[in-house]
Order: sequence, then structure tokens, then C-alpha cells
Amino acid sequence: MEYKFSKKLAELKPSAIREIFKSLSDPTIISFAAGNPSPDSFPVDDLARLSAEIFENEASFALQYGITEGYMPLREAIAARQKSRFGEGMVRDCDTTLVVTGGQQGIEPACKAFCNEGDAVICENPSFIGALNSFRSNGARTIGVEMEEDGISLEKLEETLKTVKNAKLLYLIPTFQNPSGTCMSLEKRKAVLALAKKYEIMIIEDNPYGELRFAGEDIPTMKSLDSDGLVIYCSSLSKILSAGMRIGFVIAPSEVASKMVVAKQAEDVHTNLFFQMLCHKYMTTCDLDAHIAKINELYRHKCNLMLECIDKYIPADKVTFTRPEGGLFIWGTVKDCTDASFVVKKAIEKKVAVVPGTAFNCDTEAPSPSFRLNYSTPSDEQIIEGVKRLGEVFTSL
Amino acid sequence: MEYKFSKKLAELKPSAIREIFKSLSDPTIISFAAGNPSPDSFPVDDLARLSAEIFENEASFALQYGITEGYMPLREAIAARQKSRFGEGMVRDCDTTLVVTGGQQGIEPACKAFCNEGDAVICENPSFIGALNSFRSNGARTIGVEMEEDGISLEKLEETLKTVKNAKLLYLIPTFQNPSGTCMSLEKRKAVLALAKKYEIMIIEDNPYGELRFAGEDIPTMKSLDSDGLVIYCSSLSKILSAGMRIGFVIAPSEVASKMVVAKQAEDVHTNLFFQMLCHKYMTTCDLDAHIAKINELYRHKCNLMLECIDKYIPADKVTFTRPEGGLFIWGTVKDCTDASFVVKKAIEKKVAVVPGTAFNCDTEAPSPSFRLNYSTPSDEQIIEGVKRLGEVFTSL
Repeated sequence: MEYKFSKKLAELKPSAIREIFKSLSDPTIISFAAGNPSPDSFPVDDLARLSAEIFENEASFALQYGITEGYMPLREAIAARQKSRFGEGMVRDCDTTLVVTGGQQGIEPACKAFCNEGDAVICENPSFIGALNSFRSNGARTIGVEMEEDGISLEKLEETLKTVKNAKLLYLIPTFQNPSGTCMSLEKRKAVLALAKKYEIMIIEDNPYGELRFAGEDIPTMKSLDSDGLVIYCSSLSKILSAGMRIGFVIAPSEVASKMVVAKQAEDVHTNLFFQMLCHKYMTTCDLDAHIAKINELYRHKCNLMLECIDKYIPADKVTFTRPEGGLFIWGTVKDCTDASFVVKKAIEKKVAVVPGTAFNCDTEAPSPSFRLNYSTPSDEQIIEGVKRLGEVFTSL
Repeated sequence: MEYKFSKKLAELKPSAIREIFKSLSDPTIISFAAGNPSPDSFPVDDLARLSAEIFENEASFALQYGITEGYMPLREAIAARQKSRFGEGMVRDCDTTLVVTGGQQGIEPACKAFCNEGDAVICENPSFIGALNSFRSNGARTIGVEMEEDGISLEKLEETLKTVKNAKLLYLIPTFQNPSGTCMSLEKRKAVLALAKKYEIMIIEDNPYGELRFAGEDIPTMKSLDSDGLVIYCSSLSKILSAGMRIGFVIAPSEVASKMVVAKQAEDVHTNLFFQMLCHKYMTTCDLDAHIAKINELYRHKCNLMLECIDKYIPADKVTFTRPEGGLFIWGTVKDCTDASFVVKKAIEKKVAVVPGTAFNCDTEAPSPSFRLNYSTPSDEQIIEGVKRLGEVFTSL
């Protein structure tokens, strides 16, 4: 049988990062390639105890079909936390909070709800490959807009909004952008919202790392600033409770949320109900703030350690690095270089895995002078040894 | 903001059944409308014990990101069981077994992999609304083919294959078809495979109820009969371990499976890893056969009870009913009638919920002389009282 695949999937490759993740079975490789939270960030003892309680008291309900929108007590707990953490504007009267199967499932149904095949999604360039592939797998074109130090270029964004036909969505990670680590300034957030209103385009605000700030001050989310129903807010509990459980959430104008529910229903009916109940129990009976403070203490340490090693081992005249105030990543850019793919290749020869910048390009053919490093997964020893080896890549140039 | 939704989702309504499910909060209503497994079918004590073991010994792995294809030991356990249960042909050397987020997530990525917007999916008419909505949510047209007592009409199927343009998939539930309860005969399964080969169309064989046979003899699955790589086999553990955990699986030619992995990756990255491990532990350390035998004993009893009540309370000259050998549903058809929607309305006045046949039509505007009854969820008392009330709908005609 010669298979004739759909146009949208015929050419689409699996995420380079997920593929790298699979190839890391070689235990001698030090991986800075993952986007995994530290296993130390999982509150195992509390989850084990609460899980036993659910089996004891609510098993019939937890193991049965649930409704697509999600377990109501968890939806309420998430809405309450988002409001207390990021402001009352996070969930307005006209909004609905949904539970989805990881943050990823906030993005994909949003694209399905708005994009016909051939429509465009405007993205920061570089951007999160998982989201780019969500758009591509729905037959949408991804149009990249250049980044500046304080986020997306306003000038280029307006130019794109003026010229690109059938642009239906603007996908942004305003806080600790993946992969660049950039935070969009407050002024820019307001200006982007004004542009979205002017050009009548919906914004997906992806905020998986918002709770992972270990330095500096919070900047209001775009969702909290939006009074025009322009923002679909996607986030998850992956980075603060468990990634493997696949519990994410969406806060969106109710009319939009109801379309996303129809799309989700046709994809997986609903999200694992047992873990929805487990998250609800954790959020309402344990000290989530203290737990997150512990995670951020850990990541502050790991990030600082990696930056110290970078300063020590990697020649500053050859590569520049971001100095993030949160999130999971450091973004390196080779000076006077258009294509840094040699770094990835030479690093893997030295048994260090990093992600090539090309993986995050909207244009899959374009080169990149950058690469991404993760500090949350490796041990302290691995960070020291790995950056040392990475330094050899550059000193031997 | 006036939202401009995609063509494919603009008109798509949530599943009538899921909506009915939500409206069943009225405890005085007897529901024959669900498709839920009996809560007695969940092996709660074993799952609780094995869950505690995972938290004790493998928590860091279980709560971390996994790979999109699924937890390898579970994939192997599923492949082994399918082979031992339904024959060596279930998983051939050229096949791949994937874990997905419920059986529903086998269907949707298959559609994404093969269908461009406007392409057609040929379906039994009536068919499973969740699958129909998966196709519609991808912008595919659903083309219904008439059913006969032993499955889809071969004559009508070939006529459709000849005339419908861009038909990319043939969606079938050959065993205990939902909603009609029909089993496709062995001859017909072979003939349909031959037609699929002749017209070069892929088959999705959806088999959620295959393990739920409580009378009669197994008929080989289409997957086990297919040596041409034509069949994408979708099933789940929802009806034998837990529906709420959302663990399903796909067995497909590897080339097809790899496209479905790309689609799934963009949807939810991977399926809840903790429950994948829990299912693996259950399947390899507990007696699944004995557990399924217990479920089937229960359903045989409930189905027989409902049929006895039907014989007693519903006039045989007014309605005919299927007499299933497995699965979860009985399908009623009103004689000399084209539109049985009055049954649903009158039943709900008597506080009994049934699903109108129209919910399963490929053509959403077409009427239906039928309605679906579920016997797995209601208690014995509810079955007796509910069928009695349903009888009054017809005796008062």
C-alpha cells in the first residue's frame, strides 16, 4: 500500500526536541537538550497520600468518564489561583476556565477553532516548536516576527499584520519566552494588545513558565490586561506539580472556550479524571506557594551555576548568552555567525546535547546562529562538566 | 470582539450524548443514555495497591515527561495481549503499537494524517458520534453507507467508493457496532477488505467493545485478516479497566503510525505516564482474563434483564430491538416510522433518558426511526422501572 498522507502531515517532522529526548538513552551523554522540570519539583509524598485517599473514597467517580470541560472543583481552584497570582483580570465574567491534556492541548484546539487550512499564525521567531507543529499539523502557515530584547518587534509585527493574508492568530510566550528567555515589557504587552484589537486578531498567550520566576519583578500577563476578549490564555501544572500527568488549563472568552471544547471532545473526550482530582486536592489542601518557592530556589541555583560555568569556560567574545530571571532555558548566540549547527554537532561528539536554534524557526529551512541550554534537568556535576565540554567546542575554533 | 471561527468548527455542535450526560444531574431521571462502563468493572483495590507501588518505587519517572509513542512496556503488553486474544495477525512485523489518550485519540490523528479539508470519510450509517465529530472537526465530510443485519451493505459501499470524490478513510466498528449492536460477518469483513484494497482506501477499525462478548463466538478482527497494511486498529482499556483514565491504543502499519505520532505530539505530547505504568502493572501482574469474565457476566445479566423487561413492557408490534451478544447497547427501531424523536421527548417527560438515533446519523439533518438504550450503567431496579416507563410511551400511542 502506498500511503497518501494529508498535505499538512506529509512533510511535518516530529519535534526535534522530542526526538533528541528519545536518543538520550546513552547514559554517558550530558543533556542540556530537554525542557523537563527537575524531578525534585514533584511533591511525591503529598501526591501519594492524596492518591490513596481518592482510591479509598472516590474511586468510582475518578475512574469513570468525566465531562470535556474538566472537573469543576479543579477548574474553580485554577481560576482562583490565577486571579490571586496574576490579578482579577485573569478570569472575567465572560471567561471560561477549561482543563486540558497538558498546556499543548490549549494551543492545538485554539488553532483548530480559528484556522482553515492555509490560514496564517503569526509567531515570535524563534518560538516553541511544539506550538509551531500544532499550527502546521492543522495546515496553518507559521509566519515569524523578529524578536528584540524586550520581546517581539512592534514595527515588524504591524508590518506583518498589514501584509499577511488570513492571519487568524498571534502566538506569544510573553514571559520567559521559549527558547530565547526574553520577557516582553509591559509597554510592549499593551501595544501588542492594541495592535491585536486594531487588526482583529486573536492572541494565544502561552505561559508555562510564569510561576517559575526566581529574580526580578512580575510583569502583568496579557490576559490580565485584556478587556476586549482577545486573549486565549494557556498554561499548565507541568512545571510545578508533574509534567507526566498532562494537566493543563485554558482561560478564554466563553464563546471561544465552547468551540475549543468541541475540538477537545473530538480529540480525547476529556483529561485523565483521577489526576484532575489529585491536582484539586493538592491545590486546596497543600501549600502550593511554599512548594513553588522551593522549586524556584532550586532553579535559581542551577541557573546561576550554569551561568558561572559559562563565564568560566566559554569565551565571551565568541558567544553571548541570555541571563534569565526565570523559566528553564539559557539561549546562546554565536557572534558573527549565521549558522550555529556546527556547535550542536561538535557538542554531541563531546557527549553534550544542546538544541539547535533551527528547531525553533518558523521557517524550517532557515539557519540559526543560536542554540538552547536547559539547566533544570541536569545535576550540578553534569552542569559543570557539560559546560566545560561545551567550552572546548569554542576554544578549539 | 466578533469571533470568526474556522469553517470546520463554526457549525459543529458538541456531542449530543456528552451534553445529555451533563444534563443528567437530575437524580430522578433514569438514564439509558450513557455509554459508560459499570463502575463495578473497575478493579479498584488492585489499582490502588499498584498505584502505591509506583509512588513508592518509580515516582520520578512516572511524573516526568514521557515519549509520544507511549510507555514501551505497556505497548509490548498490549501487543502481546491483542495477539493472544485476536490472533498473530493483530501485530505484524510492519506494525507499530501506540498508546493514545483514550480510543478517541486513535481516530482523530488518523483522520488528520489522511484527510485534507473537504476530503471524505465513509462511515456505517448510523455510527459513533464521537468519531463522526472527529472527522468533522478536521473538515472532512462524513458519507454514510446503509447497514444490514450482518454489517455495512457491500453493494452500497462499492457504489459509494466508486462515486464519492476524495474518500480517504473507511470508518468501521465491525464488532458490536455503536449504536446498532450489529456484528459484521466474517464473509463481509473479507469482502470489505477486498474492496478497500481495490479502491485503495484505508480502514479505521474501531473495536472498543471487542472484549465485551458475553454470548456467541468471536469473529476475527479485520486487522487480523489484513496482510496489505490497510487497517488502523483503534481500541482502549476504557471498558475493561477505567474510562476516566483515558488510556487507549492504536495498532497500525508503522509508516502510518509515525504520522499519527506527529499529530499526537502536537496535540498532547504524550498520554498520562503514571496511568500507562499502572495499566502495564495491572496487565502483567493481575488476572485480566478473570476480570473481563466478571464484567461480561455482569453485562450478560444486565442485557438479559433489559431484554426481558422489553418483552414484558414494550409492545413487540410497535418497536423492534436488537438482541446483542456483547457490548453496551440495545438499539430500538419504531415500526412504520421515519422519525422517532417523539420517543425521546415522551421518555424524558417520564424521566427516562434515551439517545435519539439522529445523534448517530452521518447526515445531521436526517431523521431516524431508532433510539439507543444502554444497560451497563443503570442498576437492576433502574432497568426494570425505566423500561416500564418507556413501555408507557408506546402503549399510550
